[in-house]
Amino acid sequence: MTASLDQGIAALDAHDPLRGKRDALVVPDGVIYLDGNSLGPLPKAALRELQRAAEQEWGTGLIRSWNAAGWFDLPMTLGDRLARLIGAARGEVVCTDTTSINIFKALHAALNLRPGRTTIIAEGAGFPTDVYMAEGVASARPGVRLKLAGIDAPDIEPLLGDDVAAVLVNHVDYRTGVLRDMTELTSRIHAAGALAVWDLCHSAGAMKVDLNRANADLAVGCTYKYLNGGPGAPAFVFAACRHHGKLRQPLSGWWGHASPFAFEHSFKPGDGMRPMLCGTQPILSMRALAGALEVWDDVDLEQVRDKSLALTDLFIALVEGNCSRFGVTLAAPRQHAHRGSQISFRHPNGYAVMQALIERGVIGDFREPDFMRFGFAPLYLRYADVFEAASILHDILANETWRAPRFAARATVT
Amino acid sequence: MTASLDQGIAALDAHDPLRGKRDALVVPDGVIYLDGNSLGPLPKAALRELQRAAEQEWGTGLIRSWNAAGWFDLPMTLGDRLARLIGAARGEVVCTDTTSINIFKALHAALNLRPGRTTIIAEGAGFPTDVYMAEGVASARPGVRLKLAGIDAPDIEPLLGDDVAAVLVNHVDYRTGVLRDMTELTSRIHAAGALAVWDLCHSAGAMKVDLNRANADLAVGCTYKYLNGGPGAPAFVFAACRHHGKLRQPLSGWWGHASPFAFEHSFKPGDGMRPMLCGTQPILSMRALAGALEVWDDVDLEQVRDKSLALTDLFIALVEGNCSRFGVTLAAPRQHAHRGSQISFRHPNGYAVMQALIERGVIGDFREPDFMRFGFAPLYLRYADVFEAASILHDILANETWRAPRFAARATVT
Repeated sequence: MTASLDQGIAALDAHDPLRGKRDALVVPDGVIYLDGNSLGPLPKAALRELQRAAEQEWGTGLIRSWNAAGWFDLPMTLGDRLARLIGAARGEVVCTDTTSINIFKALHAALNLRPGRTTIIAEGAGFPTDVYMAEGVASARPGVRLKLAGIDAPDIEPLLGDDVAAVLVNHVDYRTGVLRDMTELTSRIHAAGALAVWDLCHSAGAMKVDLNRANADLAVGCTYKYLNGGPGAPAFVFAACRHHGKLRQPLSGWWGHASPFAFEHSFKPGDGMRPMLCGTQPILSMRALAGALEVWDDVDLEQVRDKSLALTDLFIALVEGNCSRFGVTLAAPRQHAHRGSQISFRHPNGYAVMQALIERGVIGDFREPDFMRFGFAPLYLRYADVFEAASILHDILANETWRAPRFAARATVT
Repeated sequence: MTASLDQGIAALDAHDPLRGKRDALVVPDGVIYLDGNSLGPLPKAALRELQRAAEQEWGTGLIRSWNAAGWFDLPMTLGDRLARLIGAARGEVVCTDTTSINIFKALHAALNLRPGRTTIIAEGAGFPTDVYMAEGVASARPGVRLKLAGIDAPDIEPLLGDDVAAVLVNHVDYRTGVLRDMTELTSRIHAAGALAVWDLCHSAGAMKVDLNRANADLAVGCTYKYLNGGPGAPAFVFAACRHHGKLRQPLSGWWGHASPFAFEHSFKPGDGMRPMLCGTQPILSMRALAGALEVWDDVDLEQVRDKSLALTDLFIALVEGNCSRFGVTLAAPRQHAHRGSQISFRHPNGYAVMQALIERGVIGDFREPDFMRFGFAPLYLRYADVFEAASILHDILANETWRAPRFAARATVT
């Protein structure tokens, strides 16, 4: 590193308005963590909440904690806390179940809000579980069919017709990091009389998401990526309040009932978002998520977005400037308006290169067939980390250390 | 207490073959916990596993722990661990999602295993979410109808006919503690050509359950009651191996795929129990459950059952002997063959009496309209606790302390 570049990077970190946040998370020594888009690191507050939940609330409070510690209300209280981060209002978001299950609920709810319409559109190249769950909805609901953008048509828009009930769209593509214009696409979906169901897995916590400004109908997302809620932390589901009172989905469990503790013998959906709940939630994981969301309470998402773009700009410039000659090509949008907070580069030996990076402490991940994926979580990542990661990547490519046999074997999980 | 009774109780505890197990759990001082049938106490091993999962696996291992710490395999490894406790074979049980969601999966799987049959039978007085989920299955699957024993007919058997695909039965009734004969009822269900789906929420961990001896088809249950897995701990689902290869249900998420990490663009169900999985599981809650199940590894369930019956016999004898004159009536079977591990007594002011008991440290719970429910978890409950609980109940009734105004107001959650 030249002295001036060195100073420039140091200055960027010194003036980073989010620099104080890194200390709220546990980032292990010797690790440059570029996989926060897959599993965010441990917030110190999450550990504190988890211990309190286990030792005091469960250990001492026992059954009494369902009321006394607010366990039963966690889907709503955490949903309200999360609402600001995705441009939702209080009462429009609940934290519950998994993204997959929430997709199932949201698509059924959308079909029920658009009676007579029987087509669901999803993205053939979207995150696979989105397509699988849409297949599941169609399989169990006679007459409903699924059309896939990228397979049945190149894009979503040619598929929009007057039989379409719901369109499930990934806000940011999981492989390439391409960001969709939520306002624009929602408006086109509405023009066709359909409802827009947004998957925010790769945008929530990475940028200012504004569901209500975009007039989105439903949305789902996970909390264990940029939001740092913990491995497999409960997911969330949003429905715009204009749809409340009409939300119906077949996972009609007791937590969705108007009077869960009256033990009535027939299902009556509750108010607001309650019909999107189903069964008893994993409280320990929920309480870790509560701690993780605390970290966000005073975060300005405009600052998050600005830093995200600056970090990804820097990484693209360094990698393209120094590594293009080794066969690395950018698979992410150059335009800010289309970029999420992760950057993929393709390389014919991307898997082995990623393994070599991980051995050097630069943790990204790999997606078939040849995507090296790097996530940039502005809350704890420093400009110096980005510079260091790009330098290590250059070193691995220039010295071909990725050719070592130990990097060749694919693990079952990457 | 007379000296001889005192000695007798002490002798029972001294000769209890399970007496060493109490130390594996955190039972707060001053509490006689008769609500382990609702939320089991904290196992020390669960706390240890939770801390390891949070601090080491998540905090340090980060994304690498999905492989290195076996997170991805937890539904199977925990299912295999649980299998012995419910009479299942390895590979027949997975721990995942919630009981409600697993009921939905199991009923759909049963309908798909019995094509052409369109009736589901459930119990009108069963745990409400069982009925609600069955309603959800019927609502989303045109032509499928739900018949409720206790509403459409007094018992299950009059409803059995050649259109019945699945019968959902609670092994132990949540209010009264009545235990069903699983072998007998499964045989009658099979004689009608239907499949038996057992809900083990109130029997798993309370007695020797033997799904395969009874020839059960499918089963679900929770792990947070007698198994002590923690608040809202992931539930389980069982399918007999004779049905494997044919299990299909519409919650077809990526964890159920034959190759979850190949990111294929269409759902292909995996082998064995994999199609009963859906989305990413709450790992922290799963790891607490792992610790909880450790406690069971060397437990003889015949001893658990023997002690459960001895504890409930003692409680019934003491309460009936001393409290009948205050209007308390038994709402639980006297016969061992029909008794679960909880005992309900009815009292016109049952809610207030239960609140008075809780204030004195005897924690049971209340179920509408007038059931005082007492659970007897043999792993940590002592005969002396049972004696003390009965004495305190007598004291509250004899002195009418339950009439104090503070005991009258119903909380939203009991």
